[in-house]
Amino acid sequence: MTSETEFKQTTLNQVRRVAKRGHYDRETVFKILDQNLVGQVGFCSDDGPIIIPMLFARRDDELLFHGSSKSRLMNMLCSGSKICVSATILDGLVLAKSLFHHSMNYRSVTVFGSGYEITSDQQRIEALRIISDKTMPGRWDDARGPNVQEMKATCVAAVKIESASAKIRTGEPADDPDDLTLPVWSGVVPFVQHAGQPLAAADNTPGLEVPEYLNRWRADHNSQFAAAKDVS
Amino acid sequence: MTSETEFKQTTLNQVRRVAKRGHYDRETVFKILDQNLVGQVGFCSDDGPIIIPMLFARRDDELLFHGSSKSRLMNMLCSGSKICVSATILDGLVLAKSLFHHSMNYRSVTVFGSGYEITSDQQRIEALRIISDKTMPGRWDDARGPNVQEMKATCVAAVKIESASAKIRTGEPADDPDDLTLPVWSGVVPFVQHAGQPLAAADNTPGLEVPEYLNRWRADHNSQFAAAKDVS
Repeated sequence: MTSETEFKQTTLNQVRRVAKRGHYDRETVFKILDQNLVGQVGFCSDDGPIIIPMLFARRDDELLFHGSSKSRLMNMLCSGSKICVSATILDGLVLAKSLFHHSMNYRSVTVFGSGYEITSDQQRIEALRIISDKTMPGRWDDARGPNVQEMKATCVAAVKIESASAKIRTGEPADDPDDLTLPVWSGVVPFVQHAGQPLAAADNTPGLEVPEYLNRWRADHNSQFAAAKDVS
Repeated sequence: MTSETEFKQTTLNQVRRVAKRGHYDRETVFKILDQNLVGQVGFCSDDGPIIIPMLFARRDDELLFHGSSKSRLMNMLCSGSKICVSATILDGLVLAKSLFHHSMNYRSVTVFGSGYEITSDQQRIEALRIISDKTMPGRWDDARGPNVQEMKATCVAAVKIESASAKIRTGEPADDPDDLTLPVWSGVVPFVQHAGQPLAAADNTPGLEVPEYLNRWRADHNSQFAAAKDVS
């Protein structure tokens, strides 16, 4: 599926502002996509642009989505219309000595493509499992699977990634040499997305422990974000 | 500026999937906008939809943006073209006993409008100060202000919020009654965006302490997110 290492640079995906922060290799783009649970999905309606946040997963060169069969966005994703998906992780505030050089550390990715409906029941289940496994490995085999009625209410769509780019800023403020003697604190305030202690539902079966895969997922999630706050 | 309490429901801003999660009152919409540093800004290009993440601030019924004078997005924001801005805070994973009822807790807002360039120097400085004050109160008066050359390189734009809505999910999983006896752990894993310990830049002036307004901002930021993880 992954025919080339890099996405071709076009007017659509090219990072023009601070071009050195742009990345076009599939490995970088895919990694950031896989680190985001939710993407902002945009399309052009008759009334202008519309953006809706959606859970997604990646399979090779495709993004997978699911939603209600009646949803406007799912219809749009199934229609073949042009789609843009953006996902951004904020890693920190960059405080420079001048206001002009203030910035943020982030990992951001933008994908361009068009969608189609996944129609066969086997492929729909496969796609739903990939979405579930990305969100929390182990959950699919534990929770009750979808029944016929639930599958009927669910629409599954894929967006082929036709073009994409990542934009990344890391590290310290880049101050003007003349400003370095100013008595203004400069540095980075890191952001971390932390997954807290699981809270059992009031109607959860009494005596059930938090499952092992959930604790493992939490540890993985929190260590990944803790690692990302490194500003070196 | 705020002439009506609610945004009118139209085909553009109406929350159709799980309509009870939709909110149209300015207070709710504005609060979520103010809690997000970055919005995903979408517009329709000749090649289809394009989404770019941008720092923003709100002033009454307007969103304020700044960027390079040469940026494609800033040009689009100044052109009067239709714009959509989406911002989402993830508050948790909702783990139900059935896969079908899995969900996320979130606070999301979508804004529709069109932009214009702010041209007078006094208004540009005012807008930049509002963006700076939203990001970190106190920083504007501490860091070196913009000089003539930096102001020339900076474009400032406003988007009038013509329509908007919020979508919010809070609380526990909503399981089918028949599933409640299944031996599957159900509950919520809360997400918190945590601002970590400030890291001084290598070329920061030796001996400078982390400023008091930064510590205060961190405490406020972290307590706000800690409060939001409450699933009651």
